[in-house]
Amino acid sequence: MTNEELFSAVAIAAWKRVVVSVEKQVSSFSDDEVLMEVAPGRNRVYYIVGRLAAIHDRLLPMLGIGDRLHPELDDLFIEHPDRTFADRLSPTQVNRTLVEVNTAVTRGVEVMAPLDWLKKHAAVSEEDFIKDPTRNRIAVLESRTAHAMYHAGQIRLLKKS
Amino acid sequence: MTNEELFSAVAIAAWKRVVVSVEKQVSSFSDDEVLMEVAPGRNRVYYIVGRLAAIHDRLLPMLGIGDRLHPELDDLFIEHPDRTFADRLSPTQVNRTLVEVNTAVTRGVEVMAPLDWLKKHAAVSEEDFIKDPTRNRIAVLESRTAHAMYHAGQIRLLKKS
Repeated sequence: MTNEELFSAVAIAAWKRVVVSVEKQVSSFSDDEVLMEVAPGRNRVYYIVGRLAAIHDRLLPMLGIGDRLHPELDDLFIEHPDRTFADRLSPTQVNRTLVEVNTAVTRGVEVMAPLDWLKKHAAVSEEDFIKDPTRNRIAVLESRTAHAMYHAGQIRLLKKS
Repeated sequence: MTNEELFSAVAIAAWKRVVVSVEKQVSSFSDDEVLMEVAPGRNRVYYIVGRLAAIHDRLLPMLGIGDRLHPELDDLFIEHPDRTFADRLSPTQVNRTLVEVNTAVTRGVEVMAPLDWLKKHAAVSEEDFIKDPTRNRIAVLESRTAHAMYHAGQIRLLKKS
């Protein structure tokens, strides 16, 4: 393996670990549990799952691996806080959407050429990228992996230990 | 910057972001808040902070950047669950220990040569490393960054929003 392959393989493995872990955790919940808050007065699992789906869906164009599958999620899970609207998706639908989006991202990152990880991501300008070449695709993947871990820690609090 | 420098700079920046964020969050808490559970029946912030200090302390030998500063933390925060013992450290002491350990780790990772990140970490055998060269130092740093994010998400639940 080249050095670039090693660095990117480590980041891809971390991404896969967290999305599989979140999907597994969420699929172990009943619908009622998905609708519970992770702590009193905090977001419901439902909202966190929808939010992860929306954020991960944005990765597709950001990493140059495809068009968005579910741009409609932004209104529900990014632009407005939990419980702004009556739920438009069932718990099962929101869980399935996360799996669908994660699967598309994972497929795309697995076939990315190692050197392409150092290219700019789609949400940074050429100008800004020249100033700061760490605003690259691998930084985006690692940031989303970290973000998913952040919410995985919250979802975990609902598990019967 | 070389490719190896770019890849390692991204991972180091992510590490720094999460440790600074956790330290800032924790330092905003009163002693009473540090002693609160992140959710009913779950670990206290106190225990999570001690655990992060212990796990990060282990990074020093694991990454080959120094000896452990606080091996005594393992007994309190890794080998036994929260509230096994009466607290032997005050909330202030446990917070300070985390900052001390994080500072030592950050200093060490900042001066690591980019190619050294692909060397084996100290907790894997030569034999296993040959079989799987992704069991390297950058994988350990990224895994600890992800772990810290996991707990950052939990600690965040206590913040008055």
